[in-house]
Amino acid sequence: MELDCLDLTKKTDEYFGKVVVLKGWIKNHRKQKEFGFIDFSDGTCLGNIQVIYENDLVDFDEIQKYRIGSAICVEGEVVKSPKAEQDFEIKAKKIELLGDSLEDYPIQPKRHTREFLREVAYLRPRTNLFQAVFRVRSVAAMAIHTYFQERGYVYLHAPLITGSDCEGAGEMFQVTSLDLDHLPRNDEGEINYHEDFFGKKTSLTVSGQLQGEAFAMAFKKIYTFGPTFRAEVSNTKTHASEFWMIEPEIAFCDLEELMNIEEDALKFIIRYVMEHAKEEMKFFNQYVEPGLLDKLQVILDKEAVRITHEEAIDYLIKSGKDFENKPLHGEDLAKEHEKYLTEELFHAPVFVYNWPKDIKAFYMRVNDDLKTVAAVDLLVPGAGELMGGSQREERLDVLLDRMKAMKVDESELSWYINLRKYGGCVHSGFGMGFERLLIYLTGVDNIRDVIPFPRTPRNCEF
Amino acid sequence: MELDCLDLTKKTDEYFGKVVVLKGWIKNHRKQKEFGFIDFSDGTCLGNIQVIYENDLVDFDEIQKYRIGSAICVEGEVVKSPKAEQDFEIKAKKIELLGDSLEDYPIQPKRHTREFLREVAYLRPRTNLFQAVFRVRSVAAMAIHTYFQERGYVYLHAPLITGSDCEGAGEMFQVTSLDLDHLPRNDEGEINYHEDFFGKKTSLTVSGQLQGEAFAMAFKKIYTFGPTFRAEVSNTKTHASEFWMIEPEIAFCDLEELMNIEEDALKFIIRYVMEHAKEEMKFFNQYVEPGLLDKLQVILDKEAVRITHEEAIDYLIKSGKDFENKPLHGEDLAKEHEKYLTEELFHAPVFVYNWPKDIKAFYMRVNDDLKTVAAVDLLVPGAGELMGGSQREERLDVLLDRMKAMKVDESELSWYINLRKYGGCVHSGFGMGFERLLIYLTGVDNIRDVIPFPRTPRNCEF
Repeated sequence: MELDCLDLTKKTDEYFGKVVVLKGWIKNHRKQKEFGFIDFSDGTCLGNIQVIYENDLVDFDEIQKYRIGSAICVEGEVVKSPKAEQDFEIKAKKIELLGDSLEDYPIQPKRHTREFLREVAYLRPRTNLFQAVFRVRSVAAMAIHTYFQERGYVYLHAPLITGSDCEGAGEMFQVTSLDLDHLPRNDEGEINYHEDFFGKKTSLTVSGQLQGEAFAMAFKKIYTFGPTFRAEVSNTKTHASEFWMIEPEIAFCDLEELMNIEEDALKFIIRYVMEHAKEEMKFFNQYVEPGLLDKLQVILDKEAVRITHEEAIDYLIKSGKDFENKPLHGEDLAKEHEKYLTEELFHAPVFVYNWPKDIKAFYMRVNDDLKTVAAVDLLVPGAGELMGGSQREERLDVLLDRMKAMKVDESELSWYINLRKYGGCVHSGFGMGFERLLIYLTGVDNIRDVIPFPRTPRNCEF
Repeated sequence: MELDCLDLTKKTDEYFGKVVVLKGWIKNHRKQKEFGFIDFSDGTCLGNIQVIYENDLVDFDEIQKYRIGSAICVEGEVVKSPKAEQDFEIKAKKIELLGDSLEDYPIQPKRHTREFLREVAYLRPRTNLFQAVFRVRSVAAMAIHTYFQERGYVYLHAPLITGSDCEGAGEMFQVTSLDLDHLPRNDEGEINYHEDFFGKKTSLTVSGQLQGEAFAMAFKKIYTFGPTFRAEVSNTKTHASEFWMIEPEIAFCDLEELMNIEEDALKFIIRYVMEHAKEEMKFFNQYVEPGLLDKLQVILDKEAVRITHEEAIDYLIKSGKDFENKPLHGEDLAKEHEKYLTEELFHAPVFVYNWPKDIKAFYMRVNDDLKTVAAVDLLVPGAGELMGGSQREERLDVLLDRMKAMKVDESELSWYINLRKYGGCVHSGFGMGFERLLIYLTGVDNIRDVIPFPRTPRNCEF
């Protein structure tokens, strides 16, 4: 009976005394004169299965030569393990080599640095750490889809190639099919983008929010979950040039209700991942971030605090702490401020809302004080900002004023403006960087280690 | 009690006689002297809810002016409808205008052409047709995730920006952060890509398969589901420049088993969508493609036929039909051939496998006859090719020979080649264009109408 290791691990009792067939890879191989141990895995679950073979096998000598990394087929009996820490092992009747591994196989059973493993990103998912990381990535993605779909949200694939620029940010990649060696030019000597693929200059999107708003005006509740891009030359642990975002958008939803949704979604995702990736989460808790599970339990158990930006600054000033960045009304929060609020003051997730309008985007709804906008950041202990959202400006005249004041080009956004002319309504949405969530969930602190094949400045391998 | 239309429609019995609050949009408005009817929807389910208001409401005259497309809040009692074709209607106690719609609102309650609706793609999801299309798009995406996750596949986000080119296809978009007006050049006068963002020339991916293979060698079973790009100047009903693909890849899986998985997955997805988007599928069956549900039922009921490419050509020749494209051994199948096989000969889905190697990609496994490769296309009645897959070439020497023969550049693919050195094994995978699936599921025959904001040559609006 051919099985996945996952089946065998989940339903071991069913298989005791039976002969099973497993196909997978050798993770470690310890040889004795009269027998040998193979740590075996097919990657369907975390951890290895121990295979024992003895010298009564006809090709015993051959088997002893099998190298780490090789693909093999094991036929053997599932037997109770004499060791306490494992339930069962496989007593091999036959071991067949399916694919050899060369001696220079880079993933040896020893501790490799994460830096080294990035250089062999195509092999690193074979290590325990990255088995756990990328399975949790997969499970967390499913958690997100499950949360929104069960609640009637429509999943929107927002376009990646765009002629417009959501936040007026200049840091976009250009997309072109022009031959750069022979650029077409007009009479003024300028590049003639009429001859480019789309008949105009195009870029990779930085957000699907604006398209999300259009769909929220049709389906009430929608979410995007797709890649976004930043051509920012920033080599930090939290910046990548290509990353995935979740951007829900909800009609007839104000800032208060948005915070409810954010909190509910986050709790759901954490619960789902803890339940569907138990072994992986235990692994992170033990080897990557001791205390991780407690940290996540706090989010599940506590209600998030809700304070205005003004109150946040007041708390920071009152703290009497000697911050490197002086907390100031009307200005952004620094990492150390977020840390103080979540980890020292409240020991809980904190919503900071009603931000100074001058440091926020044009589409956020202006509050009655005319100084702040109905924006909200969700800060969590141990990671800072995890979600950023806002009530959107639904009033046509106010939106146009804000676009003018912030020098946002209206020409590519007339359709977006029109949403305010045709049954516009109170609506809100938020964005969550998927990788930021993963960093938070796993304790793995570098974005390069939660993306299968990360793209960062000067790095586009594999 | 504030409700979504979906809740109310699903659990109408619970709400009879109760007062509910609904927020949504006016789809149609018929006025009489002493009362009025509003066709109302919040977009959470297909179809409208009828709201009746009478002239006992204080702002009756105001309400009568509310235009189509406006956002309103309705408070009213759920009552049995006197009409047979609907269960209930809302007898309004209060109707409040939340957001006006201008008179030039393009989505009036009449038949609009799909061409016109493409020009207002940001509004078209408000029509019945596109409500149905984009909800089915969302439901089908969930079907795919559910199928693979329930079976232990790991969801892989393959990279979008790439330095390599999977199929040796030239039709890729270039991605750059260089200033095209001031291109940096080296001593030879060539563009100096060392100064580009990634330190080399980069493009948008045409497939995540190669990275998928790397992950299948770690997790056994993986799938991608993400955007891919083609810079092909092709204005047909089935080509878009940006579209989503599903690419599962399975280790220790041969061509036979791959066909089993393809068939099982397709049946699951169809069943899931028919169950989770019942109203929408009925709508397509009635208004878009009469016979659609029967067509899909055939797929569920019948086992797919499996024939070799050689047999397929033999069948075509034997048919005695006067094809425009003469069927020839060693050559590709034309649309009319696919149509004959699926719709006239077998009346069932047909797997055509073992294709002539010269017309297939370098990574497909060469069969023992040295003339064919272990590739398989799944053809379905009414749509032709829906999935394309193959067993991958796991033999290092054969792969290298094929790459040389087909002039595939090895330099960017050394990691891919290495997969054959470190525990390589029999493995297979397939690709399915998500939009092609949607065209098949909905009967909507133009790819521009199943993508929220389609990108095609000279078209990158919204």
